Amino acid sequence: MECKLFCTKKSMSVSEIVCLGKTMSNSFDRWTGGGSNGVELARQFCSCRGVSLKASYSTTRKSKSSMEWIGQNKFAVESNSTNWIIGTNGVISSSSLGECYLLDATEDNYEGIIVDPERLPSNPNTFASRLQSSLASWISKGKKGIWLKLPVERSELVPIAVKEGFQYHHAEREYIMMTYWIPQEPSMLPANATHQVGVGGFVINDNNEVLVVQEKHCTPACAGLWKLPTGFILESEEIFTGVVREVKEETGIDTEFVEVVAFRHALRVAFEKSDLLFICMLRPLSTQIKVDDLEIKDAKWMPLTEFLKQPHIRGDRMFKKIIDICIARLGKRYCGLSSHRVTSKFDGKSSTLYYNVVEPEDNCPGS
Amino acid sequence: MECKLFCTKKSMSVSEIVCLGKTMSNSFDRWTGGGSNGVELARQFCSCRGVSLKASYSTTRKSKSSMEWIGQNKFAVESNSTNWIIGTNGVISSSSLGECYLLDATEDNYEGIIVDPERLPSNPNTFASRLQSSLASWISKGKKGIWLKLPVERSELVPIAVKEGFQYHHAEREYIMMTYWIPQEPSMLPANATHQVGVGGFVINDNNEVLVVQEKHCTPACAGLWKLPTGFILESEEIFTGVVREVKEETGIDTEFVEVVAFRHALRVAFEKSDLLFICMLRPLSTQIKVDDLEIKDAKWMPLTEFLKQPHIRGDRMFKKIIDICIARLGKRYCGLSSHRVTSKFDGKSSTLYYNVVEPEDNCPGS
Repeated sequence: MECKLFCTKKSMSVSEIVCLGKTMSNSFDRWTGGGSNGVELARQFCSCRGVSLKASYSTTRKSKSSMEWIGQNKFAVESNSTNWIIGTNGVISSSSLGECYLLDATEDNYEGIIVDPERLPSNPNTFASRLQSSLASWISKGKKGIWLKLPVERSELVPIAVKEGFQYHHAEREYIMMTYWIPQEPSMLPANATHQVGVGGFVINDNNEVLVVQEKHCTPACAGLWKLPTGFILESEEIFTGVVREVKEETGIDTEFVEVVAFRHALRVAFEKSDLLFICMLRPLSTQIKVDDLEIKDAKWMPLTEFLKQPHIRGDRMFKKIIDICIARLGKRYCGLSSHRVTSKFDGKSSTLYYNVVEPEDNCPGS
Repeated sequence: MECKLFCTKKSMSVSEIVCLGKTMSNSFDRWTGGGSNGVELARQFCSCRGVSLKASYSTTRKSKSSMEWIGQNKFAVESNSTNWIIGTNGVISSSSLGECYLLDATEDNYEGIIVDPERLPSNPNTFASRLQSSLASWISKGKKGIWLKLPVERSELVPIAVKEGFQYHHAEREYIMMTYWIPQEPSMLPANATHQVGVGGFVINDNNEVLVVQEKHCTPACAGLWKLPTGFILESEEIFTGVVREVKEETGIDTEFVEVVAFRHALRVAFEKSDLLFICMLRPLSTQIKVDDLEIKDAKWMPLTEFLKQPHIRGDRMFKKIIDICIARLGKRYCGLSSHRVTSKFDGKSSTLYYNVVEPEDNCPGS
């Protein structure tokens, strides 16, 4: 009887699985395993729930050093008298109990393990003992990175995993991702996200009026300032759609993306993370302003000359430069980066490449 | 006797404090409160550790509705018979016990509270009761966002905070940040970081040879490919230094940053987060290759013509486009974005603005 018959086929969504180490990976070929989804799942590990396995003992990949390295943790495999049997199908079992004591998990393509967050034992003590057994098994098999995603409803398991040596990797509202790097070499697990991405929209109409807003929640330094609409893009949103959305939300104006004309990189903006702000030239498609009451105090079309006269703009080198660039672009004396859909064979992924198109029809410098 | 005499002055580093809501904020004026650090800390809340306060009862900002909204949580202020006294100095105390039952915390500039992660009660039960009392106090004072940073050594407090209604915000190896948004209106707390930022270096020498690498941990799709050195920048690292560092680490070659020639935005690359890859033109400053054994299988100077003949490059639209752009830049038929230090008065922060400089001396199109 094959253990896999009793396993859940459910696994983490492929987009939540990370494949390559941080610095060793590159954005081109990181996700190459499984076509458009980018990740191929390999064989599954599972808890067999009372199924007695016909298993053979194997120590092929069990190295003493890897066990010693984890010396501070008391694995079940070491701390009790049960004879642990590692089955041919990758399932660890106990010969004395005839039961599987492993967490449900899937292998990834990088010799790593992804624990199934939807099949965690309901009892914390069971989780603790299965985590220990599973770690012992994964170490014996020469596995590398372990991914343990704990939903917020199972927060009582967090200290248990910490006790076993797991580290925090990242968290979102609904879960915390914890990791365990088994090899003695430095961890090759990819890092957490490091940046927030903002967008600012320069929208100018045929009357040479700029679309500007006054923010409701404004610090004294920007009190009374009429500024370009800005905001953050979502974690899986294009820059060219994010900026159109933000302008629409704040002012009610429909626009069309033209180009990224510049971007600003500011370090250590929040929680040591950094901030990229893309200044985008947009073409207005409507005229009627409708202010977002939650964020925006007021919005209007402001003559460009009046906009530039504001002390905040005139007196600030950065603001001034950005506006200069936008005006140069308007006067076709500047060429920004336009967006182009590209698909790479390496990951089958469609992504957006922003570059400067210097061709006659673009009315850019050099044309 | 003033309570503040007994408070710790220690607070979170300013860079770890977030000030404005996600969509309402913009990258220019988000950090304007406190000069170069960008954040002004206001008065502190504290636990008074056995000091009996001369306090007056105040209900000024305590609204019934805000208490009702948190109805599912049993706050100490509601669930026991103690008469809670809110002192004039912002400290909540119990008249019957003569003790403070609040967590050490600091106000931020946005009517929020930052709990001091270095002065959390050592006993989890004490933490639980103080968290309840503190929440009641903050609600009564009309506070908005609560920031609770729990170091990994205190992971046993995570389920306690979850039980009180705290949500995960983000996590790093050493801590998890949890938040609680008190008002009934939608949360204005800023989101977690959403992007990883990668860099790729196009380095070409006077012999028209490109600096290329073969990666050690390579997927089948890129097996045998000689590619540009790439890597992720750190969370608080400039693009122009990050790319120079990555090239140096992987190949031993010193380089000088010239321009960002293009960037790629790929969505949902890891954990639903997205990826920005900046392709940078670099000028080589040395010739002797020294391969990084951990990540790189091999590195070499490869004739440009040979590099382009590789099936991986020829057959891939994205690779091909990127290389075309780099070659156009070499031939001075393309102008990328160069980096410029700018400081904005709004936040006193020095940041980097990347834009296209079209001036005669730049040898760019249009010159």
